[in-house]
Amino acid sequence: MTQNIYDNEEFFARYGELLRSREGLSGAPEWPALRALLPELRGIEAVDLGCGYGWFCRWARRHGAARVVGIDVSEKMLARARATTDDPAITYLGEDLERLTLPAASFALAYSSLALHYIEHLDALLAEVHRSLAPGGSLVFSVEHPIFMARSEPNWVLNAAGRKTWPVDRYLEEGPRAGEWLMTGVVKQHRTVATYVNMLLRAGFTVSRIEEWGPSDEQIAERPALAEERQRPPFLLIAARR
Amino acid sequence: MTQNIYDNEEFFARYGELLRSREGLSGAPEWPALRALLPELRGIEAVDLGCGYGWFCRWARRHGAARVVGIDVSEKMLARARATTDDPAITYLGEDLERLTLPAASFALAYSSLALHYIEHLDALLAEVHRSLAPGGSLVFSVEHPIFMARSEPNWVLNAAGRKTWPVDRYLEEGPRAGEWLMTGVVKQHRTVATYVNMLLRAGFTVSRIEEWGPSDEQIAERPALAEERQRPPFLLIAARR
Repeated sequence: MTQNIYDNEEFFARYGELLRSREGLSGAPEWPALRALLPELRGIEAVDLGCGYGWFCRWARRHGAARVVGIDVSEKMLARARATTDDPAITYLGEDLERLTLPAASFALAYSSLALHYIEHLDALLAEVHRSLAPGGSLVFSVEHPIFMARSEPNWVLNAAGRKTWPVDRYLEEGPRAGEWLMTGVVKQHRTVATYVNMLLRAGFTVSRIEEWGPSDEQIAERPALAEERQRPPFLLIAARR
Repeated sequence: MTQNIYDNEEFFARYGELLRSREGLSGAPEWPALRALLPELRGIEAVDLGCGYGWFCRWARRHGAARVVGIDVSEKMLARARATTDDPAITYLGEDLERLTLPAASFALAYSSLALHYIEHLDALLAEVHRSLAPGGSLVFSVEHPIFMARSEPNWVLNAAGRKTWPVDRYLEEGPRAGEWLMTGVVKQHRTVATYVNMLLRAGFTVSRIEEWGPSDEQIAERPALAEERQRPPFLLIAARR
């Protein structure tokens, strides 16, 4: 059973202090790259897997989506999401992505931001998402990059030249990583890039684009601290099609 | 213009001492994984991009390929390749992969082992390879893994626990890497995993499988020194289809 860390009081409070929690999509530096992978939203039905506060659901509606379903296992997240909208075309559902069933062939887009790396049985979830997409429908998601997640205690190390390097070990050892993120003991599932791709292919998807995200020059000019993310990508973004 | 390091006397001599040079395919630990990506060879025409000594060309013929074309820019390599066979169904061609033209729609398989990371204009080569494949034909190749190649001076660093870690930096900074491999000043082209995949998609391929290679338990039992390769993958293997 997947850890539901977002319903932990302390974690939820700290999560709320992140830039991406306070400012929403525009506070997430990878958002422009993720957005570029999305299909045209006008008139479509979309599902957001791990919708959190519901930022994407509301954004999708503002950009013309006909109906959006936001799914999250965290009651705290859903309470916040529901409190921020009275749009009848957005439905928030409290469901565990480990045991999700969705109506068949009903969505043109399945979207997920930084949620799938919590999922233990990702093969099963991807099969269900594939089944729930209309033919030609898109799956667009981000996860923590496997280079970022491989080690249990991620941190930078200065090399002899004083340059930040990211020491990788256990990259090919897939499975849970219990590390420190906002608080100790947060469990994520480490998978290689190859495994993400091969799982998608096995579920019947074709891969249409991969991004190993790093900040743009403009982003670094605005937030110089982002520069180090170019040394190794923090996020992996994938677009696939049914 | 791509460096032709294999025609350097010193490099060629040292390359000849590698296990994979002395023993051929069975001396390359990633070969079983690469082989598993190959289509049925019986009766097909295949091209080997960067054929070196010609190990794969001869192996493909022994496994039923009707005709094999081996291409390499190194005259020393080709001389060795030609000296090891009088099979009229194998043709060795001295061509620069940077400026290759191939007959259209003529091969069922394009194969390449650890050669494409030398290529500067990989987009152009992949377009040409795509054009040269018969519909449904396969491209199967290996390159040094981008995690391995990102830094200019790859080496292990012991962490506080005495465990080998692989420090990554400059991962998102693509371009030439002039490092030490057999001798100093060997120039390879660093590209991210995403770039390899997106280049294939742009050339019209569909991706059918990715492997980030690491040794099997059996391989480690036979050659314990291989164990460290599980900390980070040395090779990236990709199978794609026209």
